[in-house]
Amino acid sequence: MAPERATAQVAVDCVVFGVQLALPDHPDADDRLMVLLVERGPAPFAGRMALPGGFVLAGEGLKAAAERELVEETGVKLTYLEQLYTFGAPARDPRGRVLSVAWMALVRPSAHQLAPDTDAADARWVPVAEAPPLAFDHDTILATALERLRGKVRWQPIGFDLLPPRFTLTWLQRLYEVILEQTFDKRNFRRKVLKTGLLVDTGDRLTGVPHKPPALYAFDRDRYERLQTSGFSFEL
Amino acid sequence: MAPERATAQVAVDCVVFGVQLALPDHPDADDRLMVLLVERGPAPFAGRMALPGGFVLAGEGLKAAAERELVEETGVKLTYLEQLYTFGAPARDPRGRVLSVAWMALVRPSAHQLAPDTDAADARWVPVAEAPPLAFDHDTILATALERLRGKVRWQPIGFDLLPPRFTLTWLQRLYEVILEQTFDKRNFRRKVLKTGLLVDTGDRLTGVPHKPPALYAFDRDRYERLQTSGFSFEL
Repeated sequence: MAPERATAQVAVDCVVFGVQLALPDHPDADDRLMVLLVERGPAPFAGRMALPGGFVLAGEGLKAAAERELVEETGVKLTYLEQLYTFGAPARDPRGRVLSVAWMALVRPSAHQLAPDTDAADARWVPVAEAPPLAFDHDTILATALERLRGKVRWQPIGFDLLPPRFTLTWLQRLYEVILEQTFDKRNFRRKVLKTGLLVDTGDRLTGVPHKPPALYAFDRDRYERLQTSGFSFEL
Repeated sequence: MAPERATAQVAVDCVVFGVQLALPDHPDADDRLMVLLVERGPAPFAGRMALPGGFVLAGEGLKAAAERELVEETGVKLTYLEQLYTFGAPARDPRGRVLSVAWMALVRPSAHQLAPDTDAADARWVPVAEAPPLAFDHDTILATALERLRGKVRWQPIGFDLLPPRFTLTWLQRLYEVILEQTFDKRNFRRKVLKTGLLVDTGDRLTGVPHKPPALYAFDRDRYERLQTSGFSFEL
C-alpha cells in the first residue's frame, strides 16, 4: 500500500511591520518598530494575540488570500508584500493539518490607521519588543520575518516603504536604527545614503518646525529599477 | 453560508543546483551552472522533465519530505537546502489543488554522482541554460531559484557549498562568473575575496598540474558564524 499523502487546509498569516517615529504629527512618540496583531475570538487560542490571517478559500490564490485577510481583519493599506516562508510542522495546529503560508508586509506611518469596522475589532499595533506570546507558532513566524527584514533592509531599498513618501535624512537614519538596533554616525550615514544616488532632494523643507527646517527627500524608484537591470546593488 | 475553504495536497519540489567546472578530474568540461531534473513517468506531463519532488506524507514535515524525495529520486548528497517559495495558484496542477513548497539545494561537484537504484532512473544534470520546458509550473520555480541564487551568492557565503571543500581562487572566481554570468578582473576578485578574511590557505597546493600549482583554500565557516553575531556582512 502506498503511504498516505497529507491533505491540508491552507492558511495565510501576515507579519505587518510599521515604524513609529517621532514625526511632526506625533512629536513625542518613541522611535519603535511595530507589528500589527489581532486578538483571536474563536478557539483554539481564544483571547490570545495572533498574526492577522485566515484560511485560503477554494479557488483563491495565496497572495490574494493574504491581501483579503488583511483588508478584512485590519483595513491597513500596504506598501509592500512578500512571501516569507511556509510553516508546515504536522502538529502546528490542534485542529488538524494546516499549512501556513506566511507573508511579510510593510506599511507607511500614515496608513497605520486601522479600519474600525473589521472582523478583528481588536487589531492593534504593538512594539515588536513588547509582543506577548502569540497563538500557534506565530512567535516563530514573527522571528522569521524580523530576521528577513533586518537581512534585507541593507541590501534592498524596502525601508522606504516604511516611511512617508517624502522624508528627512534624520527620519531615514532613525528608521534604520530602529530596525537594526544599532546607532549610526550621522555624517557617515548621510554620506552613504546620498552616495547611492537614489535620493532626490524634493526642494521642499519640513514645515512646522521652529528653525532650520530640514530638506525633504524622496526615493527614486524608477532610477533604482533602471540601475538594477545593469547589475547595480543597493547597499546601506 | 461561509465560503468554502481550500483543501490541498502538498508537494515539495526541489531545485538542485550544481556547478560543473573544469576540475583536474574533468579537465575538458565547460564551466556551467547545472540543475538536476527527472523525467516524469506517470501522467500528468508523462515523459516531460520536471524538478525532483513529490507529495508530502501524512505526519511528515516539509523539509523532511524534500530530503526524502531527493534521496528517493536522485540519491545526491546535499550541502545546502533552503526553502525557496510556495507556489499555490489554484489551477497549477490538473489533478486538483496541490500546493508546491519549493526548495533550493546546492551540491558539491564530488556529489554529482546519481544513485543508480532510485525511483527516477532518468534523473540527470542539465545545464540551466539548456533546460527544456518543464512539467507543471516548474519553469517558474526554476526561474525563482535562479534569481534567489544570484541575489544571495554575493551577500551570503553559499557559493562555497557548490565547490569542493578545498579549492583554488581560480575555481572560486569561475564559480561566481558562471552563476552571475559576468566576468571578473582576476586581481580585483582575489583582493576582494581575501579581504573578507574568511579564506584559509590550507598550505597545500593542487596536485597533478604541470607547473606552478595553485594554493588550495578553505572557507572558514566557524569564523564566519562568529563574525555574523557581531553584525559582520559577507560581501563579494
